[in-house]
Amino acid sequence: MKIEEIKDPTFLNNYDVKKMETLSKDIRQFLIEKITKYGGHLSSNLGVVELTIAIHFVFDFSKDKLVFDIGHQSYVHKILTGRGKDFHTLRQLNGLSGFQSLKESEYDHSEAGHAGTSIGIGMGLAYSSNVNNIRNNVISIIGDASITNGVALESLNDLGHRNHKLIIVLNDNEMSISQNIGSLQQFLGQLKTKDTLRKNYEKYSKLDKAELIPALNILGKAIFNPVKKNFAPQNLFENLGLEYMGPVSGHNIGDLIYALNKAKETTRPIVLHVKTVKGKGLKDAELDKDGKFHGLAKKNVSLGNLLYKKSWSEIIAFIVYKKMKNNSKITVITPAMKSGSKLEKIFSDFPKRSIDSGIAESHAVLTAVGLSLGKARPFVSIYSTFLQRAFDQIIHDVAKMEQPLIFGVDRCGIIGEDGASHQGLFDLPFLLNIPNIVVITPNNQEKAEEAFNYAFAQKAKAVFIRYSKNKIFFNSDFSTSNKLEIGKWEKDAWDSKNNSCIISYGDFFDDIKEYLKKNDKKINLINALFQKPIDKKMMLEIAKMKYILVYEESYIEGGLASKMLNFFNELRLENMPKILVRGIKGDFIQHGVKNEVMLLNKLSPEQVFNEFKSFIDLDETR
Amino acid sequence: MKIEEIKDPTFLNNYDVKKMETLSKDIRQFLIEKITKYGGHLSSNLGVVELTIAIHFVFDFSKDKLVFDIGHQSYVHKILTGRGKDFHTLRQLNGLSGFQSLKESEYDHSEAGHAGTSIGIGMGLAYSSNVNNIRNNVISIIGDASITNGVALESLNDLGHRNHKLIIVLNDNEMSISQNIGSLQQFLGQLKTKDTLRKNYEKYSKLDKAELIPALNILGKAIFNPVKKNFAPQNLFENLGLEYMGPVSGHNIGDLIYALNKAKETTRPIVLHVKTVKGKGLKDAELDKDGKFHGLAKKNVSLGNLLYKKSWSEIIAFIVYKKMKNNSKITVITPAMKSGSKLEKIFSDFPKRSIDSGIAESHAVLTAVGLSLGKARPFVSIYSTFLQRAFDQIIHDVAKMEQPLIFGVDRCGIIGEDGASHQGLFDLPFLLNIPNIVVITPNNQEKAEEAFNYAFAQKAKAVFIRYSKNKIFFNSDFSTSNKLEIGKWEKDAWDSKNNSCIISYGDFFDDIKEYLKKNDKKINLINALFQKPIDKKMMLEIAKMKYILVYEESYIEGGLASKMLNFFNELRLENMPKILVRGIKGDFIQHGVKNEVMLLNKLSPEQVFNEFKSFIDLDETR
Repeated sequence: MKIEEIKDPTFLNNYDVKKMETLSKDIRQFLIEKITKYGGHLSSNLGVVELTIAIHFVFDFSKDKLVFDIGHQSYVHKILTGRGKDFHTLRQLNGLSGFQSLKESEYDHSEAGHAGTSIGIGMGLAYSSNVNNIRNNVISIIGDASITNGVALESLNDLGHRNHKLIIVLNDNEMSISQNIGSLQQFLGQLKTKDTLRKNYEKYSKLDKAELIPALNILGKAIFNPVKKNFAPQNLFENLGLEYMGPVSGHNIGDLIYALNKAKETTRPIVLHVKTVKGKGLKDAELDKDGKFHGLAKKNVSLGNLLYKKSWSEIIAFIVYKKMKNNSKITVITPAMKSGSKLEKIFSDFPKRSIDSGIAESHAVLTAVGLSLGKARPFVSIYSTFLQRAFDQIIHDVAKMEQPLIFGVDRCGIIGEDGASHQGLFDLPFLLNIPNIVVITPNNQEKAEEAFNYAFAQKAKAVFIRYSKNKIFFNSDFSTSNKLEIGKWEKDAWDSKNNSCIISYGDFFDDIKEYLKKNDKKINLINALFQKPIDKKMMLEIAKMKYILVYEESYIEGGLASKMLNFFNELRLENMPKILVRGIKGDFIQHGVKNEVMLLNKLSPEQVFNEFKSFIDLDETR
Repeated sequence: MKIEEIKDPTFLNNYDVKKMETLSKDIRQFLIEKITKYGGHLSSNLGVVELTIAIHFVFDFSKDKLVFDIGHQSYVHKILTGRGKDFHTLRQLNGLSGFQSLKESEYDHSEAGHAGTSIGIGMGLAYSSNVNNIRNNVISIIGDASITNGVALESLNDLGHRNHKLIIVLNDNEMSISQNIGSLQQFLGQLKTKDTLRKNYEKYSKLDKAELIPALNILGKAIFNPVKKNFAPQNLFENLGLEYMGPVSGHNIGDLIYALNKAKETTRPIVLHVKTVKGKGLKDAELDKDGKFHGLAKKNVSLGNLLYKKSWSEIIAFIVYKKMKNNSKITVITPAMKSGSKLEKIFSDFPKRSIDSGIAESHAVLTAVGLSLGKARPFVSIYSTFLQRAFDQIIHDVAKMEQPLIFGVDRCGIIGEDGASHQGLFDLPFLLNIPNIVVITPNNQEKAEEAFNYAFAQKAKAVFIRYSKNKIFFNSDFSTSNKLEIGKWEKDAWDSKNNSCIISYGDFFDDIKEYLKKNDKKINLINALFQKPIDKKMMLEIAKMKYILVYEESYIEGGLASKMLNFFNELRLENMPKILVRGIKGDFIQHGVKNEVMLLNKLSPEQVFNEFKSFIDLDETR
């Protein structure tokens, strides 16, 4: 069967184990081909080929419900539900999402992108079956790293004392994105297959569905009996009141089918522990400990060279490294993004002052608060989209206690192929409304270093330094002791006779600057380095302008322009400037290459500049 | 010793167990007297009297660090560190905080208010001792309900595989605020004192500190030996890589001192499980299962009558109850605030459709999302300040998946005596920047019921209905099938010849309306029921006004006025109205009676109206 021709998973009903094994090979080949060509998540999907096939074989998702945690490992599920033919559009504008998507398929019963949500949502789905008097199965598939996220642990704790039927398939590849953190993983490692699943391969490999399941049940019973509870030490899941089964090999379809059927028979919440090999079938990916094969970018893919040479992450790590050399109190904390945020060298050269908290954002921020209360100097490196998960900690622990933490907010702005769940567009609007903090978006390496000099001099204010996923110019010899002055914006071009002015910050500032230069446009231009506090002195000068463009990589409502409008209103000007604000309008932004997304949202420097010109012309001719 | 005369805990060095027992009785008496008179948290503090004394006896907090989870149980600590004399100012303006407070005492090493933060912060403090090459002890005291919060579980998971010395005192009263939720609690209940602590009372009760600790060590060894790991079933904490000791009676000072000393000797993270009786020493509070004695309001206290007769919580519960009677799909979810949000009757009459998720806000919202995906109709009842903890879920799970959840956001606005950590002032600014949702703040029972009618008719939009801690007029016979029209504001008084206008919502709307009526002031008045979306049609009318006052119980930046300014800017008016905005300016708001806090922040209707009058006069005379 051609992978592209699969319409829905019903064809599996006529498959025996042997045919499913062949299908696994074909799907694995298909994934490697497509993902190395078009980009996407590779290793995690290679790891769940057999598991996903077995799940679709055992359950019927026209009535059962399937929830993938995060969802970047749902590619095989996409293939089995008829989306193989669209893989050339993966993560591109209007193409297939890189995650589950309610709008994409009836077989997608939830959506995610962030870790740890599948158990709670699965529990709600199971509860809804009770409310609606429906009998069905709910399966949540979660990885061994995601399950240590706070919300997943909350859900596990709540689940065990309820009697909902929920099958949690714990996909344990002992890896997560890069290496795993936390005691739960150590505990999982200790669990041995007490009850080795039968491997009497010849006996079942050619039976069809009607014959296979009863046969497996008979063959399996002898060796897969639950050990009597009174004699066996309880494991953590059992302590939490859950049934536990496993570990089962995630690459043996017969064993998987047997175990899934057993899980299907229970009436209580059950954890089915499945051991998989991330990157299975691609040697380099199997051996990858740093997450290089976790997600591949489109086209950029040559399997030997996956380094981003001048990414913002790299530049920020370079600056922090220098700081750590000169200040023995600085400690770096990241929630599982050591590789993504390019902190490897910091971790290897300063192991005692480097903390990977695992996928546990709230806890990472609290650890930093404790460090700061203890007079160390924490630097928290975190993606914008994950900072949302520490929102309460920023208010309740960082800002309220006036702790001078430094945050490196990575992946701000439009995120590109990962799409709606990963956009870095909420951090600015929520940060700007929190007291006692400072927010800076530098536009280049020099300003970034000055921002860090400023931040490390603070005693009672947390400083959030924001940067995007873009690459920018990098100079390895650059160093400065200059500091930014709090709230101070910089005039890049200024002629007081000119009555119009552009205000921008971060990458957008450099983009518009370059556009103006290239096209020889003369206009006042301001680099609004600080988004909080704003430069009130300069605002008084700007207030004299007739036309202002604010060009920002943020939601318009809640962004910098919004704060400027508040300030202008307080000034009670007789003649308000006419202000055009260009940024993201209030909707979720879908996946696609960043430049394409910008064009679609009319946010390219050219589009915005031309609009500003029309805006002025229209007013002048009134 | 008079409780008010205690200056610092050093006096305990000369105390023997007998004297500490007498001190416990005196402190307990003092707490009952002061809290029933001045209000505050009663039961939780009565439960930790001996524990707090023992901790101060064993450790030296001029160098060791003490972190209370939440901190409402830190009153005994406040007494022992010289703050007993100030208890008449508890939770009042400029008086003692109801929680730990960095600014209040050198003995307060952290601050909280929300649950589950003490382990992460304790871990950071322990880590900072490493960074700073200091040797000291860090003690985190956490209750059995708080420890099931996601961030606490994240911290436990991360802690076990590190070798920081952190002593977690698990204060297990089997209660939390009202009754406990979750498997961890069931697990804790199963733990029996395997190693009964010695109770050879006569032998040690009169020894002083120098004699006592060695004596306890000798006496205790025989019976308090750690059971050999290989033979004993591991418990959950041990599964997570932590040392575990207990349970110990939290009301036996000798046993506590012995156990704390043992914990002090370890070099690894350890959980000391202490069983306490919440409300110990006050019969009614000991027997209270509903949390009535959790927090007492000032003066209102007659121990027989603690009901709030017409609180917003009660009115909302009344409306939801009626809805549930008529719609069998509605399911109510609360994260441990059944009693606070007055949901008792709903829980007892609709047990199958009532879920208490425990102190696990993120998980509560996810459960609701699952219910909604499964075509049930979830109503999430949650305090504004705790909604912050589900911020990512609101964006990533509710709004992105366009689920029509209904949120009852309780305790919005200025919170009064609980102070900075509990203010309901962040929800509006953060909600207004999230796509796909609707935000309504009704001002009375009628509008609240209409808001619910509107909300339950939605199919793809979550609706957040906000209300305060105030009491308002309640009519038990009232019922309506009217619905609010999306985004529609209401003119309460309108004369188009009048050129000024007041816009408000929620309680503030009713406050200013009443003030205007009482003082016979004629001015246009608008009830801005919807904060998102705003009423664009009415905004066009308002744009013709010369003077506008926006009076809101929210941070000014990020509140309704801020969205109005954005819209006005888009209109490109030739003549912008002059707009005065009155709400909270960008600082944390401290504790105190709400009316006093409002006066201090110049937010009483009278203050604000007079300011608006001066604002107009000043402009007219320019």
